Amino acid sequence: MATLVLLRHGESDWNAKGLFTGWVDVSLSAKGEDEARRGGKLLVEAGLRPDIVHTSLLTRAIQTAQLALAEADFMWLPVKRSWRLNERHYGALQGKNKAQTREEFGDEQFMLWRRSYDVPPPPIADDDEYSQAGDARYALLPPELMPRTECLKDVVERMLPYWYDEIVPDLAAGRTVLVAAHGNSLRALVKHLDGISDEAIAGLNIPTGIPLVYELDEEFRPRVRGGEYLDPEAAKAAIEAVANQGR
Amino acid sequence: MATLVLLRHGESDWNAKGLFTGWVDVSLSAKGEDEARRGGKLLVEAGLRPDIVHTSLLTRAIQTAQLALAEADFMWLPVKRSWRLNERHYGALQGKNKAQTREEFGDEQFMLWRRSYDVPPPPIADDDEYSQAGDARYALLPPELMPRTECLKDVVERMLPYWYDEIVPDLAAGRTVLVAAHGNSLRALVKHLDGISDEAIAGLNIPTGIPLVYELDEEFRPRVRGGEYLDPEAAKAAIEAVANQGR
Repeated sequence: MATLVLLRHGESDWNAKGLFTGWVDVSLSAKGEDEARRGGKLLVEAGLRPDIVHTSLLTRAIQTAQLALAEADFMWLPVKRSWRLNERHYGALQGKNKAQTREEFGDEQFMLWRRSYDVPPPPIADDDEYSQAGDARYALLPPELMPRTECLKDVVERMLPYWYDEIVPDLAAGRTVLVAAHGNSLRALVKHLDGISDEAIAGLNIPTGIPLVYELDEEFRPRVRGGEYLDPEAAKAAIEAVANQGR
Repeated sequence: MATLVLLRHGESDWNAKGLFTGWVDVSLSAKGEDEARRGGKLLVEAGLRPDIVHTSLLTRAIQTAQLALAEADFMWLPVKRSWRLNERHYGALQGKNKAQTREEFGDEQFMLWRRSYDVPPPPIADDDEYSQAGDARYALLPPELMPRTECLKDVVERMLPYWYDEIVPDLAAGRTVLVAAHGNSLRALVKHLDGISDEAIAGLNIPTGIPLVYELDEEFRPRVRGGEYLDPEAAKAAIEAVANQGR
């Protein structure tokens, strides 16, 4: 009945440099731009035309949506944006080198911050150069909603209201919905959709730039668990690459 | 109180070729992309940050908004799109060369179609290669609203409901509103704002890529008639160039 398409943004300037990014608003790298265009090409090849697009408030997800839609000649589609689709806030780790962090804090702490479900990194200080405390795009967000760090559980909790209130109504109206977002906000959504346990979600990686298509039933649950990547072989190779980040 | 910023898209591929465009969905030329970026730069230099952006459903206006906002680092702004902000539908003239049309039909008829308030060109046939009859972006538009040709009066009539229902409420909430649109949909809006007569509107040209800023009073009327271009000298030169099109 309803079709949901998830698209994780491609490589950003900071992915390329191996830095924790979170809510820091970095742009796509040239490679990331190519990945976004490939995402658009895959939509066209699959004959998939979204009716509406949802993005986060972060430039790299917005660029991904725009480049994919331009490639597919769908620039005119309506688009909604929300901080609730933002990447996980990486707290005090934002701006830090992943490999150095791993060395400094050790494998165990590093993997706990990266992959545990409910252990957030230390909060970022408002006067940290990588804090979003003064960022105009969050000016209307009540202070108690503005994160200073997040674990994946926090992302699930702040993402789900957007799923229920903004995305599900589009799906219920029979629309094909494209969500252009981030590794962790999409993991949070997939965790919900596929009913993945708090433990098992650690092993889930979503590749960049390859549309992941879910056909949903009348309860907005996947007809096929895990959905279907539009380029399954590229997805498999990319998933392995993501799992090796920071090594 | 409220600030309204109008931005006409820059040169498109068909402007460059001297063709009537209307609802045909052509892209910006390289020059048009530069104009859009300059528009963004002028916003930054003026310290103007829109809170929300409205565009037409046509790629050249959407590209203009996206390039200007990318230049100004405002990609995250909410955006709404509507066919009601589209360029004037140019009927059977769409896809035709302006100079050739002038030669074929004579100066008088040519200027009547281009600049009269209430004389539309002949309607376009649904099977014309430049018709939008099968265009997915208008699939939900009731057939009686779908234009096959328009005069400026028609544009005023279909644009005003969007002004009143979508733009004025944003202004009433104290938001700074950016409208990225087209020569004739913006002329229609300026006619309304400045109270320009049906006759005098023929003499009004809006330059491309230069933000036109209106400070509005509590009745959403301009404090200064005609508003203020962010680069007044460039605007003056460009207005003269537009007036000479098709000569």
